Amino acid sequence: MSDMLDTRGAWLTESELESARERLPIVYIDAVPVRTDDRGEVVQIGLLLRAMPDGSISRAVVSGRVLYGERVRDALLRHLEKDLGPMALPRVSPSPQPFTVVEYFPDAFVTGFHDPRQHAVALAFVVPLDGDCSPSQEALDLVWVSPSEAVAPEFQAEMSGGQGRLVRMALAHCGLLA
Amino acid sequence: MSDMLDTRGAWLTESELESARERLPIVYIDAVPVRTDDRGEVVQIGLLLRAMPDGSISRAVVSGRVLYGERVRDALLRHLEKDLGPMALPRVSPSPQPFTVVEYFPDAFVTGFHDPRQHAVALAFVVPLDGDCSPSQEALDLVWVSPSEAVAPEFQAEMSGGQGRLVRMALAHCGLLA
Amino acid sequence: MSDMLDTRGAWLTESELESARERLPIVYIDAVPVRTDDRGEVVQIGLLLRAMPDGSISRAVVSGRVLYGERVRDALLRHLEKDLGPMALPRVSPSPQPFTVVEYFPDAFVTGFHDPRQHAVALAFVVPLDGDCSPSQEALDLVWVSPSEAVAPEFQAEMSGGQGRLVRMALAHCGLLA
Amino acid sequence: MSDMLDTRGAWLTESELESARERLPIVYIDAVPVRTDDRGEVVQIGLLLRAMPDGSISRAVVSGRVLYGERVRDALLRHLEKDLGPMALPRVSPSPQPFTVVEYFPDAFVTGFHDPRQHAVALAFVVPLDGDCSPSQEALDLVWVSPSEAVAPEFQAEMSGGQGRLVRMALAHCGLLA
Repeated sequence: MSDMLDTRGAWLTESELESARERLPIVYIDAVPVRTDDRGEVVQIGLLLRAMPDGSISRAVVSGRVLYGERVRDALLRHLEKDLGPMALPRVSPSPQPFTVVEYFPDAFVTGFHDPRQHAVALAFVVPLDGDCSPSQEALDLVWVSPSEAVAPEFQAEMSGGQGRLVRMALAHCGLLA
Repeated sequence: MSDMLDTRGAWLTESELESARERLPIVYIDAVPVRTDDRGEVVQIGLLLRAMPDGSISRAVVSGRVLYGERVRDALLRHLEKDLGPMALPRVSPSPQPFTVVEYFPDAFVTGFHDPRQHAVALAFVVPLDGDCSPSQEALDLVWVSPSEAVAPEFQAEMSGGQGRLVRMALAHCGLLA
Repeated sequence: MSDMLDTRGAWLTESELESARERLPIVYIDAVPVRTDDRGEVVQIGLLLRAMPDGSISRAVVSGRVLYGERVRDALLRHLEKDLGPMALPRVSPSPQPFTVVEYFPDAFVTGFHDPRQHAVALAFVVPLDGDCSPSQEALDLVWVSPSEAVAPEFQAEMSGGQGRLVRMALAHCGLLA
Repeated sequence: MSDMLDTRGAWLTESELESARERLPIVYIDAVPVRTDDRGEVVQIGLLLRAMPDGSISRAVVSGRVLYGERVRDALLRHLEKDLGPMALPRVSPSPQPFTVVEYFPDAFVTGFHDPRQHAVALAFVVPLDGDCSPSQEALDLVWVSPSEAVAPEFQAEMSGGQGRLVRMALAHCGLLA
């Protein structure tokens, strides 16, 4: 979504990136922002409202590319800051083990996770936030919902491209609802 | 170790607990306390010095029983507070998935994890701490060491009953050393 | 369910087990039986029909206690054989890391996972089966359903005590449906 | 290593791939081949002998790129077949959750995982094999060693670029040695 902003030092022009996207799977991170109680249990999930690659407006989690030379951990922090602002205080896990790997394809029927621009392989993490979040840049809005609201049909209907499923998978990993 | 202190409301007398320990595997939690940098990467591991079930003095992680009616999450917090004090500010993971399950047996040769008192099945977690830790109650001492110090032979030699291996497994899970 | 059959060598009489169940959390395994295609992807889930601890008849996964002195891995194999027969050829994971930990309480409202007899802490695994399964002993029936059938409302309605949620969590862990 | 053989249908010429490798992290899989006993416990690890990207000859696990349009699961199977032959009968996990993510950098000092050709992000899995393995194509040799042999200093000294550490991390995940 925000690849122009990703080019810290011009690794890739937009046209080069487009060309690469037709040839190679792209490394992504997906971060499901959560608020926890003081026992660490998830009480709310943060969902952005934004323009998706397919042109739809959807509720979505934080997502973005890992740059050349960048650690996965740093990509997580960069995208969380970009979408939730500099005061969000994310708590990235000490372990690099993601809770799942999401495979996005231009063909919506391969996995159900859809990205018309590219084949992306996303490492997915649940990330608790301690600070104040403010949607920034391309995100139109940010809402915090309870786990049960997040899986309700009306809310799931606002999530396209597999985002609703990813949220349910994150909740299942946290022992909630599924 | 501190089972007399565990009996919030007298679930079990010491003799009843001893009897149960000869008949049933006991549910435990093992928590490896860590300090992380602001990117979430482990920079230090906290190790207690204490009397072990076999009478030795060993460096050890936080460990203890889950009580009847207690959530795993609450057992983690209770034992962390008991061993590291009330200001340790542990960050328990939003997910109940442990990084491993440690099986302690009275026979030291079954798994290499040894507890002469009982068969314990421990859910093991890496827990980042934000606050000030002070060893409390039975712990004689608490030291913070770097990952490379923790796996050095001289330090590993101070850990009995499989504690050294558990620390290496926790570090491996965090992408470090192993 | 089959605790009389669990007493290989008389670890515990039924009345002793009942007494322990009022005092200590009991270590359990939950195994979600699956059939996979030759790429390892889940194509079917096996569900037993059986009498549940609360007296209801429910679709359920394989579940049972870990005995004193028994490895978790051996408890998995024992319960899979007991419920699915000796020709089921289960493929237990090389790793002891469960995909989740399920906390069953006598109070149905603590976690939503309900066992009126006891507080059980279950290590949950997805187990692919290669052989021929035949429901045995207390299981009344065994059906194999596709992931989408397993999560359909009519099927979920046949699963009590949290079993439907556990199946959805297992599927989410396998990258399916949620 | 075998990227010329990867170009099923000519996605990328060698020069295009080289260019991409200077601009984008490349998606990889790492597969640690194991033999298990009938309880699923690891008894042997398979290690290839081969020319590494840095020109050294090293013991190594199975590793390779994920192609454009290819599922992670299919990339695992393709590289396992390429390195271990068509009769290896790998048992790929039903879950897409890797046990770790390995970040290889051209600079050997970023993570200790070193690939002079590229920045690669590898999803790492332990894969039990049921069949007969024969090293094929670029692999010079294949040996099966016990967990304790694999972590012995003399064997670890034969593994460059972080391969020895990766093997220890895989064993730690399987509850062994570390």
